[in-house]
Amino acid sequence: MMSDDLNILVLSCGTRNKIVQYFKKEVGNYGRVIATDCSELAPALYDADEHYIVPKMTEEGYLDTILNICRANDIKAVLSLIDPELTFLAQNKESFLNIGTTPIVSDYKVVEMCFDKYKMYEFLVQNGFKTVKSYVDKEQFYSDVEAGYINYPVFIKPVKGSASINISKVTSKEEVELLFSRFDNLMIQEFMDGIEYGADVYIDLFSNEPVSIFIKEKLKMKAGETDKSVSFKDEKLSKLIESFVKTVGFKGVIDIDIFEVDGEYYISEVNPRFGGGYPHAYAAGINVPNMVINNLKGNINENIIGDYVEGIYMLKYNEVVIK
Amino acid sequence: MMSDDLNILVLSCGTRNKIVQYFKKEVGNYGRVIATDCSELAPALYDADEHYIVPKMTEEGYLDTILNICRANDIKAVLSLIDPELTFLAQNKESFLNIGTTPIVSDYKVVEMCFDKYKMYEFLVQNGFKTVKSYVDKEQFYSDVEAGYINYPVFIKPVKGSASINISKVTSKEEVELLFSRFDNLMIQEFMDGIEYGADVYIDLFSNEPVSIFIKEKLKMKAGETDKSVSFKDEKLSKLIESFVKTVGFKGVIDIDIFEVDGEYYISEVNPRFGGGYPHAYAAGINVPNMVINNLKGNINENIIGDYVEGIYMLKYNEVVIK
Repeated sequence: MMSDDLNILVLSCGTRNKIVQYFKKEVGNYGRVIATDCSELAPALYDADEHYIVPKMTEEGYLDTILNICRANDIKAVLSLIDPELTFLAQNKESFLNIGTTPIVSDYKVVEMCFDKYKMYEFLVQNGFKTVKSYVDKEQFYSDVEAGYINYPVFIKPVKGSASINISKVTSKEEVELLFSRFDNLMIQEFMDGIEYGADVYIDLFSNEPVSIFIKEKLKMKAGETDKSVSFKDEKLSKLIESFVKTVGFKGVIDIDIFEVDGEYYISEVNPRFGGGYPHAYAAGINVPNMVINNLKGNINENIIGDYVEGIYMLKYNEVVIK
Repeated sequence: MMSDDLNILVLSCGTRNKIVQYFKKEVGNYGRVIATDCSELAPALYDADEHYIVPKMTEEGYLDTILNICRANDIKAVLSLIDPELTFLAQNKESFLNIGTTPIVSDYKVVEMCFDKYKMYEFLVQNGFKTVKSYVDKEQFYSDVEAGYINYPVFIKPVKGSASINISKVTSKEEVELLFSRFDNLMIQEFMDGIEYGADVYIDLFSNEPVSIFIKEKLKMKAGETDKSVSFKDEKLSKLIESFVKTVGFKGVIDIDIFEVDGEYYISEVNPRFGGGYPHAYAAGINVPNMVINNLKGNINENIIGDYVEGIYMLKYNEVVIK
C-alpha cells in the first residue's frame, strides 16, 4: 500500500554517500530513498534509488520544487545535509507537515543559534555551560589580553562560517587588525589546547528526549571534518551533553563539538544535522536512520545512551564514483 | 615457485586504500601485497594481504627495517605514497636492487627537483616550458609588480611544501612582509586564473618512454587533492607532457599539474608518485599496477597514450574502515 511506504528524501546529498547508503539499507523493501543536489557532480546522488538535480536553494521556487518532489514520491521524511538548508527546512516545517512529510530538523530558533557562533556562546554562558571564550569586540579582546585573561594564539573565524572555512590562527594584534580590516562579522575565539570530542546525538521526535549519545575522540581532522576518531565513554561528559541537549531543545540528529582541557569539558559548537563523522557512530551500532524510521512509524525509541563499545577506531579514505 | 611471486610492497600507505586494492586485484593469485605505515591508524594497511607498523622514516635503522621486510616477503617491487620517502627510495635504489627488489621511483636528482618548487621553476624556464611565475626574492617580486609584470593576488607557499599545506593567497605587500617575517624558505607564485589539469603518466621502466598519459580537468579540490575531475583529451597538451617527461627523464608513475590560461598550457608541478586523483585514470582503463607488473615480468609496455574516453567524471566520497 502506497501510504505505508517509508520514502525518505535526502536534500543536498553532496558527498554524503554513506548517509544515503544507510537509509537505503534501513528502509529495505519498505520504501525508497530519493536524493537531490544542485550539482550532478554530487556523488551521493548515484547511491539513491532515484535522484533529482534541483535549482540552488537560493533560487525562487525552490520550496515548491522540493514540495513537488515530496508529493510525487510520497515522501515520509525529509532531511538535509548542509547547513543553510536546515534553516530552510525549519522555516518551512508546516508546509512539509501539511503534505505528510516530516522534516527531521530542530526548530528554527535553535537552528539559527547553531549557525551564529556568538549567539551560541552567549547562550552557553548564560546557562552555565563551560564554553570557548569568544569575542566579536576586538577592543574587549585586547583588554582581556592585557589583563592576562586570554592569550595568543587565538582563532579568528566568521561568526556564521561552517566547515572550517576562513579560519585563521593568529599570534599578534597586527594580524587581528589586518583580518578585521579586510572582513566583516568576525569572531575571536580562544585556542583550546586539549582533546577534541564529537558527540552524535539522536533526540526522539516524540519524547523530545535524547535517546542515544555516541562520543568519539577526534584524532585527526581533514578539511574541517573528522578523518580519524576513536569511540570514547565518560559518564560526566554524557550527562553534560544530555543536560545541554535538553536545555536547548534540539530535535532529531545533531553533532556536538566538545573540548577537554585539564579535565574540564567545554561545549564548542553544534551542527544540527548528521555530522561528517557519523559513519563512526553507525559502525558502533548507533543506527540513527533506524531511529528516524521508528519515529515515522509512530514509535518512541528506547533509550540506548552509552550502549556502544569504547576504543573502536574509524579511519576514513577516499572512494570514487565514476559517471 | 617462490621466486615467481609478484610480491609488492607499498610504503607509507596512509589513506591510499584504492592503490593497495588495485595492486591486490592485479597480482591476483600470483603474489601478495604488503603495506607499511608508521601509524596503525593508516586505513590502507587493512586492505593489504599483510601489513607492518614501522618506525618513522626519519628514525635510525629505517632502511634496514624496510630491506628486512623485502627479504622476508620476497618483494619484487617497492613503492611509496608519500613525498619524503621517494627521496629515501631514490637514494637507496642500489640497496634494494641488490636484494632483488625494484623501487618504482625516478632518479634521486629528479625526485629532489620535484620537491623544490623553485628548482623546478628554473628547470622549466631554462628548457623553454611555459610555467607559473615564481619568486624567492621578494624585492624582485615587488619590482615586477611595479613594472606591471605580475599582479596581486599571488600565492605564498613553502619552496618545499606539499599537499597545499601553508599556502596563503595574499593581496598586499603588507601580507607578503608579514609572512616572510614569520617563515623561512617561502616562494611567491603567480595566481593562475584558468583551468587546472592533472596528468597521470607511466614511464616504462625498460624503454624509459612515457607509455600512458591520462589527462583530467580538475573541477574541485579538497585539502590539496582532486575531489572531482573529468577526463580530457588534447593532442597539443599530450605532446607537451611527452616532451616534458622525456626532457626530465622521469621513471615509473608520476602526476603532473598543468594550468591553461588563454589557450596556453603552463606546467606547474610534479608529484613523482601515484597522484591522489589516480583512481580516475584507473577507472578509465589506465591500469598502472598492471604496467608495473608487466615491467617486473621483464616486458616492455605498449604505448597506450590517448587510449581512453573523454568526458568521464570522477567524484570522491568518504568510505570508512572500522578497527
